[in-house]
Amino acid sequence: MKTITILGSTGSIGRQTVDVVEKTGKYRVIGLAAGENAALAERQIRVLRPKRACMASEAAARDLKIRTADLDMEILSGMNGLEELIRAEKADIYAVSIGGMIALKPTLWAIGMGTRVALSNKESIVTAGHIMMPAVTRCGAELIPVDSEHSAVFQCLEGEDRNRIRQLLITASGGPFRTWSLKAMQTVTPAQALKHPNWSMGAKITVDSSTLVNKGLEVMEAHHLFGVDYDRIRVVVHPQSIIHSMVEFTDGAVKAQLGVPDMRLPIEYALGYPERGELITEEADFWQMGDLHFEKPDFERFPALVLAYEAGRTGGTLPTVFNAADELAVADFLKGKLAYPEIAERIAAAMAAHRVQADPDLETVLATERELRESWQ
Amino acid sequence: MKTITILGSTGSIGRQTVDVVEKTGKYRVIGLAAGENAALAERQIRVLRPKRACMASEAAARDLKIRTADLDMEILSGMNGLEELIRAEKADIYAVSIGGMIALKPTLWAIGMGTRVALSNKESIVTAGHIMMPAVTRCGAELIPVDSEHSAVFQCLEGEDRNRIRQLLITASGGPFRTWSLKAMQTVTPAQALKHPNWSMGAKITVDSSTLVNKGLEVMEAHHLFGVDYDRIRVVVHPQSIIHSMVEFTDGAVKAQLGVPDMRLPIEYALGYPERGELITEEADFWQMGDLHFEKPDFERFPALVLAYEAGRTGGTLPTVFNAADELAVADFLKGKLAYPEIAERIAAAMAAHRVQADPDLETVLATERELRESWQ
Repeated sequence: MKTITILGSTGSIGRQTVDVVEKTGKYRVIGLAAGENAALAERQIRVLRPKRACMASEAAARDLKIRTADLDMEILSGMNGLEELIRAEKADIYAVSIGGMIALKPTLWAIGMGTRVALSNKESIVTAGHIMMPAVTRCGAELIPVDSEHSAVFQCLEGEDRNRIRQLLITASGGPFRTWSLKAMQTVTPAQALKHPNWSMGAKITVDSSTLVNKGLEVMEAHHLFGVDYDRIRVVVHPQSIIHSMVEFTDGAVKAQLGVPDMRLPIEYALGYPERGELITEEADFWQMGDLHFEKPDFERFPALVLAYEAGRTGGTLPTVFNAADELAVADFLKGKLAYPEIAERIAAAMAAHRVQADPDLETVLATERELRESWQ
Repeated sequence: MKTITILGSTGSIGRQTVDVVEKTGKYRVIGLAAGENAALAERQIRVLRPKRACMASEAAARDLKIRTADLDMEILSGMNGLEELIRAEKADIYAVSIGGMIALKPTLWAIGMGTRVALSNKESIVTAGHIMMPAVTRCGAELIPVDSEHSAVFQCLEGEDRNRIRQLLITASGGPFRTWSLKAMQTVTPAQALKHPNWSMGAKITVDSSTLVNKGLEVMEAHHLFGVDYDRIRVVVHPQSIIHSMVEFTDGAVKAQLGVPDMRLPIEYALGYPERGELITEEADFWQMGDLHFEKPDFERFPALVLAYEAGRTGGTLPTVFNAADELAVADFLKGKLAYPEIAERIAAAMAAHRVQADPDLETVLATERELRESWQ
């Protein structure tokens, strides 16, 4: 039985990872790291029985200790605790489902263990892909993407020569405002932006899906994960989210991976790869399926996608600025402090004001993010 | 440079194979076999310069000899000539594009050479798949399907464990009468049946596409080529012919191969496999693509598909009867001797009248076909 350490077990992807572990019965959880939700962490621990757990804060760790006083296990806290959790026992798989920039170091620690990393954190690859990917090679780790789009590309590339990629076609649902006019988009409320047509996800990523910021981040991820130039990564709007992404090869053949929009499928794949497991999600029934629609993204109504390509192409610290500015702007939007179109405007302004540093080390990446956050108004 | 012998070079697939050979510049043609069209064979010979050619009849061979008197090459005729063409020099690839039952022995001779066979003939696999497939293994040959559907399945299975197939999803355009009522289908004329919405093909296969007989034959082919039970081969009507077929795996993930409907893509793939070549067809542009539609085939309006499953499941000599009865009925329909719905009725009647022989040898398969043809009224 393979061992797994789940980082970020109480978040959206983390909870689904726990579900996959339970449903497949093929993995033994040895470590579990969560944020502040000690009540949910306790419930997961009572089922999964890891040897170690780590909570983000000391307070949450204390809470968890009281809740699990009857269990023989180690409870850690903070970044030091997280590092210990990762390094104390080498797991066969590290599922990195922590959201945000805080995942950068833990992801690198997990990569450093030289085993499989099933990665769903976007920020680490987007802001530090140039550090992450060489570390994967150097440490003999195996990075398997969990994002449905990148899992789809990964699956389409199985058995294929990566030098024969013509382009990657990253599909996007287009979000709830795909058909809205530029004028109507001025009036978007947080409640409207928080309703995703196909996927059930966290708040920030749901807003990011509606602005196509999320798709922009995924384009940058795809660039790093698969080593493909930005000119050869195309976003295709596909509102049904049945085709999760495609690869076009040099001969014009296109391969796609399809299925119901359920994150547990790419999670199961990332854990079990190269072996395919059993069905734990619903099935896609092509006899009952409606039409699948495709269109070009409207770069005018979704300017954040243009900014993402610019950030990715420029590289250095600019993707960090793109991502951090978006995070801050989305938070302000959700608080009612910004109008919807101002999310992209604030990203553009932050990018314009930033002096790009090429090939930044991890500290520079983190400092760039911190500085933007501190100067944010 | 790889050597290739093309059998059936003047037919629809054969001409496109010649085009792929010319466009890629990667193959040297050493043998070329055609039917009766000496004029086209001559043109192909002057470009490709094979060492040997074979025509179906002595008359056509004589014609070709006169036309190519200035060239230093051997010109053969008939089945003996074809056998000599195949065996005189072992080619790296045998492209078998001969149509009909006449391809059975040549396909087996090509398989016997123990190299690659790029197969587009349907009848050989449908009627003698139980002989063909073991011969492939025994002779160390490599059978690569050229049919767009089977090429798609083959491509989707690259890098995957064939034991993890849940089902094959064979797409069908649905033909020109997909939306016609049962009543309207009574009145279909040959001219209407000869208009295929997406593919440019020969007459018999175009009518077979309209009745879904062709799809039925492909289901049987898929059964033999990929070793999948009939219960796990599903036909999905997809009028745009962009998704060429799909594979669903045990975990619910579906892989599809997509592209413009152009046979030169699967031909190029079959010749070059596992290496992907350059673009010689048009590209599929998902930014400009209309909707892709999917639906369940209507088994009532397309009874031939039900008959095909029955023939496949029963096996033995019944697929031969299905195929031969269809060929004869289609010929009668094109001559105005049968109404359109009578094609399926005649197939059903022939199947009902036939006493199935299990596990027939090649002579029995050929005799079954001959007997049906001789007793046809």
